[in-house]
Amino acid sequence: MVEIISVGQDLLSGQTPSLGAAVIARGLLQAGVEVDYTTFVGNQEDYLEEALRQALVRSNLIFVLSGSGSARYDYIKKVLSRVLNKRLVLDYKVLDKIKERFHKRGEAMPRAEEKQALVLSETEILENRLGLSPGFLFKQDEVVVIALPGDPGEIKAIWAEEISPRLDLEAFKKRPSRILTLKTCGLAESTLDDWLRNLVRNQGNYTLNLIPYGEEIEILVEVRGESLEEVEALQKDLEYKLRRKLGGYLYGVDDQTLEGAVGALLTMHRKTLAVAESCTGGLVCHKLTNVGGSSQYFDRGVVSYSNEAKISLLDVSLEVIREKGPVSAEAAVAMAEGVRWISQTSLGLAITGIAGPEGGTPEKPVGLVYVALAAEGKETRFERFYFHGDRSSIKLRAAQMALDMVRRHLTGL
Amino acid sequence: MVEIISVGQDLLSGQTPSLGAAVIARGLLQAGVEVDYTTFVGNQEDYLEEALRQALVRSNLIFVLSGSGSARYDYIKKVLSRVLNKRLVLDYKVLDKIKERFHKRGEAMPRAEEKQALVLSETEILENRLGLSPGFLFKQDEVVVIALPGDPGEIKAIWAEEISPRLDLEAFKKRPSRILTLKTCGLAESTLDDWLRNLVRNQGNYTLNLIPYGEEIEILVEVRGESLEEVEALQKDLEYKLRRKLGGYLYGVDDQTLEGAVGALLTMHRKTLAVAESCTGGLVCHKLTNVGGSSQYFDRGVVSYSNEAKISLLDVSLEVIREKGPVSAEAAVAMAEGVRWISQTSLGLAITGIAGPEGGTPEKPVGLVYVALAAEGKETRFERFYFHGDRSSIKLRAAQMALDMVRRHLTGL
Repeated sequence: MVEIISVGQDLLSGQTPSLGAAVIARGLLQAGVEVDYTTFVGNQEDYLEEALRQALVRSNLIFVLSGSGSARYDYIKKVLSRVLNKRLVLDYKVLDKIKERFHKRGEAMPRAEEKQALVLSETEILENRLGLSPGFLFKQDEVVVIALPGDPGEIKAIWAEEISPRLDLEAFKKRPSRILTLKTCGLAESTLDDWLRNLVRNQGNYTLNLIPYGEEIEILVEVRGESLEEVEALQKDLEYKLRRKLGGYLYGVDDQTLEGAVGALLTMHRKTLAVAESCTGGLVCHKLTNVGGSSQYFDRGVVSYSNEAKISLLDVSLEVIREKGPVSAEAAVAMAEGVRWISQTSLGLAITGIAGPEGGTPEKPVGLVYVALAAEGKETRFERFYFHGDRSSIKLRAAQMALDMVRRHLTGL
Repeated sequence: MVEIISVGQDLLSGQTPSLGAAVIARGLLQAGVEVDYTTFVGNQEDYLEEALRQALVRSNLIFVLSGSGSARYDYIKKVLSRVLNKRLVLDYKVLDKIKERFHKRGEAMPRAEEKQALVLSETEILENRLGLSPGFLFKQDEVVVIALPGDPGEIKAIWAEEISPRLDLEAFKKRPSRILTLKTCGLAESTLDDWLRNLVRNQGNYTLNLIPYGEEIEILVEVRGESLEEVEALQKDLEYKLRRKLGGYLYGVDDQTLEGAVGALLTMHRKTLAVAESCTGGLVCHKLTNVGGSSQYFDRGVVSYSNEAKISLLDVSLEVIREKGPVSAEAAVAMAEGVRWISQTSLGLAITGIAGPEGGTPEKPVGLVYVALAAEGKETRFERFYFHGDRSSIKLRAAQMALDMVRRHLTGL
């Protein structure tokens, strides 16, 4: 059995541990290993101790995750030391690395950080390139316990650099299996559900799950079989069918993101992009710049919240604002052309709409959004959307459909 | 016992269900009710059926949550219908509302959406103002089962408008209890941990948990006692001590956000704000505009990713860029003053830094960030930071410290 224990009261705030558990679960699944239990335990030593003792009885691969931050990880180490019967010792190599990090910033290490160098004796240390506290891998009688600190980013790096190379996952596979994630944008979940209905009904050696995230929906395909050949053949067949059905709605697979797909297309076509945002308020730029190396194609963004900003920064005419309103096809087109003009980029993308909760009218309700894309030597196109949801959901959906418009333009869809 | 069952493979991608569960857990805790079990079940009918049957044996308040989207909620309704022995019937009132929503957008309702109007017979319908599918409340023999669709925003609205008013939570309280969240920014977790050590050690009738989120750390205070008077007295005492110790690092309580606190201060002082972002790439603007009504004080933002954008939009001089570099105190100051000048706002905030993974040098490593704040009639101040973590963590931390700089300025800290 494979088990993840996430420690922390964080479930209450919906923060990091579930994301950390997701990184591990995804890494395992990509290697064909399924997680059997996921437990969330509160911040009390005896809860964790009980969960860990139970796990040691039933599972042979156990991950113990803390949220980001040192305080909680300290007491996880304490509990592990007690349950696994290993001493906590100060590791001077780890301590030196922590000191060096502070030294690089020109600071002395605060005394409180020293405990981050406390490690469990007789365990392998998993280096944490992005954070202070290392992870631990403990092996005994076919049972592997891995303790990890830090935020999802740190866990991702430790997984790739430290755990994956030294953990032989073959032993934890039940049946040969493969996982594949297909990522779509712009399809309603009910439509997608209808499309896949026949495939979904025939589930035997595979499962298809839809995971919606605003306008993006992931199709999680898990394939199982008696032999790897069988699994690979089935996976290929499914992927072919799904790709044919999804067509241009498919923007990527596995770890690819919509903004990453847009970035790759911009790079491939040697195009540059500038963005003018109103209702999305910076989210489109934020997503674009989450991609490392985005400075190569993303020139600038303007969050023109006020009408004055639209007029003075983007050269939107006062007439358009007065006669058509700042939320109109005409304003979106003017913004897209304006931001392209001032930036001298190949493409100019603009979003204007009403994210709510205030500002809606019968003619222009909350959720109404216009997206426009200006391209060199072409007529500027625009699209109109009505999104459901609260302010943050409307911002997210508008940002996704705006990025998708750039993607569709660059792929000729 | 109180129990939350979240359905979906979403844990794998770290998406919505845990956030939905968080909304419920928080709502319950604020009313003094603790959650005893939280289970995540995959997307297979028999897993949910088993989890639900188990819950019906041990718990008397059970929440069943789906991720956002209709497909999964359909089969949750199917399983509920089977386990609770209630028929699924088409509710014409609900159907009319769904049709009306599509009508408002000038569209006909797709046939596939009709199933959203399938409701469980003999249950109370919980209206979903923000989405299509309503929730259900089912009561029998002292047991309450509540099924909820949708994303966290929808759940939040249904909780406040539909569940809270009709659910008497007194019956589910074990001992009188209260929960309070204190929110800080800019304090290291290890420092905060040291500060609270004495309080934390004395935990008997209360627990203190630290929940870090980048540079923001929440202190979750849970107080229990024999009587409500005792609980309230202890809570007051704790809050007083904590507030004294935290001082200006405390920016809010409970549901307040840092960007909300900044917005409230800007409104109170009748100040307006413009933002120039480089390494944060739009995240500061995105956060500011997540606050409803932010258009009252947020005028515009400029995401000046390229040097040309810094020069042409913000009037940063070529000399500063050439001699000091785009990541320098001088550039940050020039950007803050530039964006304030072009926007004619009271405040101009600027962020420039190296978010990585590329672009770092020994003198200017990945994680180096400058934040500057220009204010009417005052010398522009700047701060320098070195942040740990990957690209998204550095963006987040920089955005938080930038917002916090505005907060500290407006509170005179």
